[in-house]
Amino acid sequence: MAMLKLHDLELSGNCYKVRLLCALLGLDLDVIPVDFMAGAHKKSPLIDMNPFGEIPVLEDGDIVLRDSQAILVYLARKYGGETWLPTDAVDMAHVVSWLMVAENEIARGPNDARLHDKFGFPIDVDKARQIAARILGLLDARLSQNDWLAGDHVTIADIACMPYVALGHEGGISLDAYPAICAWIGRIRALPGFIAMPALHGES
Amino acid sequence: MAMLKLHDLELSGNCYKVRLLCALLGLDLDVIPVDFMAGAHKKSPLIDMNPFGEIPVLEDGDIVLRDSQAILVYLARKYGGETWLPTDAVDMAHVVSWLMVAENEIARGPNDARLHDKFGFPIDVDKARQIAARILGLLDARLSQNDWLAGDHVTIADIACMPYVALGHEGGISLDAYPAICAWIGRIRALPGFIAMPALHGES
Repeated sequence: MAMLKLHDLELSGNCYKVRLLCALLGLDLDVIPVDFMAGAHKKSPLIDMNPFGEIPVLEDGDIVLRDSQAILVYLARKYGGETWLPTDAVDMAHVVSWLMVAENEIARGPNDARLHDKFGFPIDVDKARQIAARILGLLDARLSQNDWLAGDHVTIADIACMPYVALGHEGGISLDAYPAICAWIGRIRALPGFIAMPALHGES
Repeated sequence: MAMLKLHDLELSGNCYKVRLLCALLGLDLDVIPVDFMAGAHKKSPLIDMNPFGEIPVLEDGDIVLRDSQAILVYLARKYGGETWLPTDAVDMAHVVSWLMVAENEIARGPNDARLHDKFGFPIDVDKARQIAARILGLLDARLSQNDWLAGDHVTIADIACMPYVALGHEGGISLDAYPAICAWIGRIRALPGFIAMPALHGES
C-alpha cells in the first residue's frame, strides 16, 4: 500500500494537478474517491482532516495537507529536489507568483466558467469569462517568450496553472486564439510519466 | 538610497503587508507612491515591470517581482533565514496553504467588501460578506488553538492574512464575534518593529 493517500475527485482539476505531479515524480499514490455529490467532504472524517471542507486532501503517513497548491509545494520540496520548486529566493518567488495566479485569476476565470457551465454553479459567468480572457492573454504573452511559466524548466507553476486552462472549453472558453498556451500544454503532455484527465485539451 | 524599492499605495493592504515585513525584518525600503487614481500602474514604466498592471511591485537591484504573496516569499527567503518561511516540506506547505487563503478567501471576502464599501467597486458585496463570514470563522477556530497560523511562531502566513482581516470594518465586517482573531492581531502589533496603516484594527 502506498504511503501517499489522496482524497480525490476525478473531475476536479485541483485533484488532478496532485495526481499529475505524483505521476511525474514517479510516486505511488492511493487515490481514494470522495463521494462529492453526497457531500462527503463536508462530513466526518474528511471535515476533521480539512476544516475547509474541500478536496484534495493529501495524507503522507501522519501528515495531512489541504489546498492543491500547498500540496504541490509539499510534494516538490519533499520528493522533487530543486527542480520543481527551487529554494533560491528569486526562483521560488517566481514559482509562487504563478501559484497565486492558479489560486486567483485561473480559479475565478476558466475554473468558475466551467463550474457554471458543466456543474450548474450559480456564478456570474460573464465576469468569469472576462477574467479568463485577461489571464489567458497574460499567459500566452509569457509563453510566447518562454517555454515554461517560471524559469527555464518545468516547475509546479506549470502543474498548478495548466489544468483549468486546459479544461476551459468546458466553460465555453476556447484556446484557439492562444497558440503559445496550446504549445505549452503540449510540452507538459510530452513529459515522461504524464497522465491526463477527462476532457483535458489536446491529444489524448 | 535603499536597494529595495516598493511601488506602493498607502491604502492598499497588499502593499502594506510588504512594508510591514520589511519593517519587521529591519530592511531599509524606498517607498515610491503610485498615482493609482491616474492609473499609473496600468502605464509605462510600471506596466513594463508588471504586465498584470497591479501593485505592489518590488525592485531589489535588477530583480523585479509582482504579487504581494510572492514578494513576501522572496523577502522571507532572502532576508529572513528559516523563521518567516521554513524550508522543511511540511512547514513550508502549511505556510503556503495560508498564503492561498490570503489570495483566495480573504481577497474575495473582507477585501472585496472593503473595495465595494470604501472605494465603490462594482462587487457583489453580499457574496463577499458570506465568504468573509466563512473564512473569519475558520481563522478564529485555528487561532483559538494556536497563537499563529502556521507552526508555533510568526511567519509570512500571518503577515499575508492579517491586513485585510484587520481592515474588514471598512467593508462592514466586524471582528467583535472573533476574539481569537483580535488577540492574534494584537500579537502581530506587539512584534518588534511593527508598523501600522490607516484604519487597521486595534490600538494605534
